[in-house]
Amino acid sequence: MSEHTGIAFRDGAYLPVEDLSISVLDPAFSCSDVVFDAVSVSDGAFFRLDDHMARFRASCDHVYMTSPYSDAEMMHIMAQCVDRAGLSDALVLALCTRGRFSDGHVKGDPRFCENEFIAYAVPYYTTVPESCARDGVHLWVAETRRAPNAAIDQRAKNFNRMDLTRAQFEALNAGADAPLLCSTEGYIAEGPGFNLWLLRGREALTPRDNLLEGITRKTVFDLCAEAGLEAKAADLTPADLDDADEMFICSSAGGLMPVTRLNDKPIGNGAPGITTSQLRDLYWRKRTEGWYTTAVADLLELSPAHRAIAG
Amino acid sequence: MSEHTGIAFRDGAYLPVEDLSISVLDPAFSCSDVVFDAVSVSDGAFFRLDDHMARFRASCDHVYMTSPYSDAEMMHIMAQCVDRAGLSDALVLALCTRGRFSDGHVKGDPRFCENEFIAYAVPYYTTVPESCARDGVHLWVAETRRAPNAAIDQRAKNFNRMDLTRAQFEALNAGADAPLLCSTEGYIAEGPGFNLWLLRGREALTPRDNLLEGITRKTVFDLCAEAGLEAKAADLTPADLDDADEMFICSSAGGLMPVTRLNDKPIGNGAPGITTSQLRDLYWRKRTEGWYTTAVADLLELSPAHRAIAG
Repeated sequence: MSEHTGIAFRDGAYLPVEDLSISVLDPAFSCSDVVFDAVSVSDGAFFRLDDHMARFRASCDHVYMTSPYSDAEMMHIMAQCVDRAGLSDALVLALCTRGRFSDGHVKGDPRFCENEFIAYAVPYYTTVPESCARDGVHLWVAETRRAPNAAIDQRAKNFNRMDLTRAQFEALNAGADAPLLCSTEGYIAEGPGFNLWLLRGREALTPRDNLLEGITRKTVFDLCAEAGLEAKAADLTPADLDDADEMFICSSAGGLMPVTRLNDKPIGNGAPGITTSQLRDLYWRKRTEGWYTTAVADLLELSPAHRAIAG
Repeated sequence: MSEHTGIAFRDGAYLPVEDLSISVLDPAFSCSDVVFDAVSVSDGAFFRLDDHMARFRASCDHVYMTSPYSDAEMMHIMAQCVDRAGLSDALVLALCTRGRFSDGHVKGDPRFCENEFIAYAVPYYTTVPESCARDGVHLWVAETRRAPNAAIDQRAKNFNRMDLTRAQFEALNAGADAPLLCSTEGYIAEGPGFNLWLLRGREALTPRDNLLEGITRKTVFDLCAEAGLEAKAADLTPADLDDADEMFICSSAGGLMPVTRLNDKPIGNGAPGITTSQLRDLYWRKRTEGWYTTAVADLLELSPAHRAIAG
């Protein structure tokens, strides 16, 4: 039995996530013509669900797609996936795919495809291995560059990850846990599924451009304000990382995760930073207290206006 | 019944291509962690199969993958797909995927995945609509750029096509048939599934960098030599296209296809070019005569050393 069982939704029906698959002839596979979002659920509550839905809509817009469901319907479906999977801590993925070309053709006019909405909930996981997420990540600045927004706009959350995967091999082969990719201009961009933060005195800095504008990254701005840190987005080169007091990565898949080593040098004394740990604790404490949360249970019923869909 | 029925191979078994699908949890979908090649079959014979297999191996190497089968075994499988589909004109796709993470996990160390080989044969199709492929393509220079090799090396044939799809919308919305994408440096790169050629006097020019080095593109070098044209790869800007006498695109999915309109201007008199037509005729005539061909029938038997696999 897989550790990552979960429940998926497609075409008005719920099914085990292991049974949810995509035809090789579907452009969602053959052109990676799909956008998505990933929302975390902790203690039975979604975090910043409205922000995720807004970003999901923006991703769809960017690739000329429209989900066939309203936000209320999609949130209901996502809640149903979590509930039916019996999960209290989960990651929920919402996907919009182009849809098949007419008559099952391999090629066709993408303007006339019926865009499809898919969702699934799986047990919560961290974007880096759990031990690293807790005790410290060893990051590696990769040679492979992140595809530029002019080609693949990273603000539209997508699965075009060949650059990330190649960079991951670079990091793993160097004995590190995860890569950090620069833009083609040489500025730090992001890693696979996470944004970067560095702390320097009372300043908290995060890369500015050519990256997914993470919801957790956005949350760190709020946490910094509360902790009396001045947070800002800036163009950062690898050299700018050298004099960081502390460093952490952030993701819906793991929250705030300390970075304790960069390339072949420890960050600070090589242990998770004190301010990083404070921000992380603040993040989880505030979530427990209901900050930006939406209870899964509150979304299980659909208003009468939305009764047409399954569930 | 779909027009694009075909036969696929996976895990030692042959099945209808419509039944071949990829789990949403498979990194081949969730990270587009897959490389491929596409070989044309005409009159029961593969074209330049050895070149395609060599490029497929290079694509696999680039993403740190190894097909579990030898070249002889893969060619046998691909021939079986064509034969079992009853096709004499086909496109055959060979894919290598990363494979699932251990224990069905959503995340994991890609170095320890078992890479998988998949193949399928479908009826021959052209990368632009058939009428354009025959009568002339209207190309559109897109604003969206082709992802640079430093991020996603286009010499490794891949499905990371968000840039191509966005550019295709630009072209279709402008009333054109297909887009032409420039590199981030502003040089013409390629379009979705095709390379570009322009003819100027006795010179034939094709973009040099940041593109799939097409097998048909390579073939055009041979055809030009035979036709007394001087073919070369060069850095070309959109402005360099303005004084072309003729223009065509090339692909395993369609061969040589005339371009008759670029942005809002006709090429030459707006009809397929005479030299383009001669080169196209030469291409198909030479294939009919057995140039670089391998009969499907000759690959249906495996040597005793390869008997372990299905088929």
